[in-house]
Amino acid sequence: MSDGPFGRPVLVVGAGLLGTSIGLALRRHGIEVWLQDVNQEHVRTASGLGAGVARPGVGEPALVVVAVPPDLLGVEIGRALAEFAGAVVTDVGSVKSEPLAQLRAAGAPDLGRYVGSHPMAGSEQSGPLAGSASLFDGRPWAITPHDEAEPAAVATVVALAELCGATPLSMPPDEHDVAVARISHVPHLLAVLAAGRLADAPADHLALSGQGVRDVTRIAGGDPALWQQIVTGNAAAVLQLLGEVRGQLDLLIDAVSTGARADLAALLDRGVAGTRAIPGKHGGPTRPMQSVFVSVPDHPGELARLFADAGSAEVNIEDVHIDHDPGRPVGLVELLVDEASAEQLLASLESRGWVTHR
Amino acid sequence: MSDGPFGRPVLVVGAGLLGTSIGLALRRHGIEVWLQDVNQEHVRTASGLGAGVARPGVGEPALVVVAVPPDLLGVEIGRALAEFAGAVVTDVGSVKSEPLAQLRAAGAPDLGRYVGSHPMAGSEQSGPLAGSASLFDGRPWAITPHDEAEPAAVATVVALAELCGATPLSMPPDEHDVAVARISHVPHLLAVLAAGRLADAPADHLALSGQGVRDVTRIAGGDPALWQQIVTGNAAAVLQLLGEVRGQLDLLIDAVSTGARADLAALLDRGVAGTRAIPGKHGGPTRPMQSVFVSVPDHPGELARLFADAGSAEVNIEDVHIDHDPGRPVGLVELLVDEASAEQLLASLESRGWVTHR
Repeated sequence: MSDGPFGRPVLVVGAGLLGTSIGLALRRHGIEVWLQDVNQEHVRTASGLGAGVARPGVGEPALVVVAVPPDLLGVEIGRALAEFAGAVVTDVGSVKSEPLAQLRAAGAPDLGRYVGSHPMAGSEQSGPLAGSASLFDGRPWAITPHDEAEPAAVATVVALAELCGATPLSMPPDEHDVAVARISHVPHLLAVLAAGRLADAPADHLALSGQGVRDVTRIAGGDPALWQQIVTGNAAAVLQLLGEVRGQLDLLIDAVSTGARADLAALLDRGVAGTRAIPGKHGGPTRPMQSVFVSVPDHPGELARLFADAGSAEVNIEDVHIDHDPGRPVGLVELLVDEASAEQLLASLESRGWVTHR
Repeated sequence: MSDGPFGRPVLVVGAGLLGTSIGLALRRHGIEVWLQDVNQEHVRTASGLGAGVARPGVGEPALVVVAVPPDLLGVEIGRALAEFAGAVVTDVGSVKSEPLAQLRAAGAPDLGRYVGSHPMAGSEQSGPLAGSASLFDGRPWAITPHDEAEPAAVATVVALAELCGATPLSMPPDEHDVAVARISHVPHLLAVLAAGRLADAPADHLALSGQGVRDVTRIAGGDPALWQQIVTGNAAAVLQLLGEVRGQLDLLIDAVSTGARADLAALLDRGVAGTRAIPGKHGGPTRPMQSVFVSVPDHPGELARLFADAGSAEVNIEDVHIDHDPGRPVGLVELLVDEASAEQLLASLESRGWVTHR
């Protein structure tokens, strides 16, 4: 078995969704992976999936990847630094400043060998069975070196991200935490507040639900045990933005109460600007897209037929959305395509008998 | 030309997205439709699409459908009641109490002939060209009779919804407004607040964006001119819920500031409960679903090949999601299927060479 680019094996601490997926991704390159978890069942499952082998009693890894829940990051990173004097140590947690502060407060030895990281990939599912070698394919992977991090350790963690198929993006730990508060943690909490309003709503009110409310609230279904650790672990950055949200909510309430249309319009315009600020697919500039809607009977094979017919039109479909329509066995499928290709797709689908509209 | 179930033609006032779609849907049944709009171009376009004919100089409709922006509803409904003494009048606006109050304040004649309604269908696009005969297929259509509404008028508006392919759901105007504040207007405003935080964010922060933030903020891209009318037209119900949101936001800020894990967990749990409260597809009870992820090269024909292969597995795909992954020409496609069918689909796709994971 090759020891690959690291010279010695990689030890993954925590064989959950992320740890197992990293093991699977590294094994694609023939790299030896050791797995460790307080839950032996997780190690057996992950190793059965081909993510590596249970950590042997002796030997020292070149790289330790700590993939444990946020609350345990500081302790486990410190333990790895102390136990393996020759290893680079990284973690894949959602928050970066807090574990670093814990390590410094605890006087962790040789902190230059630790470089934090955070793959922007995951799932609403958890555990090793949800793992996949392709989980990180094409995803951003933040690399967050602190001031004393050794350049060789940074290079090792960048190599890890690249071996997993991800795109490394380097930024300081505190900047990472502000970024994920903005693009992940606070959107999550606002989805939670929106979803919370539905919990006790009368059924006939909920019966009017469309796709919009489903999209806004979807991520609020994520694991509360994990999210309370993420949010409290990134409290400072989250509170800063929640304070902004509160200020904007007060302005909004004020504008609606007094009928101040211009103030309300300014808030709505800022929302539109925000949706446009998110980078387009593949990180490129946002191209003008158009939606093509198709009515599709809700039984097996109909979507296949639609996509086969759409494929014949030689048009690249950028996104697909199926509207859940209560009450009828017909779905409305939205195909998002380049504006320039929409007419071609419509004509082709209509010539094959599909009911379409823009 | 048949006058259909109404005995005389239907006049649609406002040939935008909804008005044109109603015309197209009624024409499927051979019903004579007259179109009227302050914008003659809209009438020409809608009538060119087959949604009806420009309103003739003489003759009285059986039913007037007012499909104008929220601000103009009260005036246009009142005008229709006054002009056509024998017609039932309805509207398709997003708010119901405010136009009724305006009609009462203005002493509109013969209010028993007016019954409000609201099809739960739309698009981020607008104008007659976005219209479609199938826009309402299978969608809920709220019918909102006030206290003095005549039963025959209610029956006429229910018939309109059914002829358009929608499922009529009857509720009082004020209850409708509370319901849509909850399942549409306030989720929209929270999406706006989430998106607003992104407007001036540094590009390297936005580069970390995943699918979650895209879903939460998508509807915030809707037309601000329309949404400011909707929100101010439903101010009372919206303010009630925004007050609740503000109370919950204060609790959230407090819980994060003080590290009160139990309070934070309670808020997160309530969000999970809310996502589960939304009715499942087709209004039935929510079935357990599982996601199957497939890596798909991003060129024409690959999605077609995937859906053809998925179709061969005889598994009904309930929803599809394509993840926009910056940096790589490979997309991650999520197929949502019945839990019981997931293994069958995975095995079938893998046997055809697809890279899958759960």
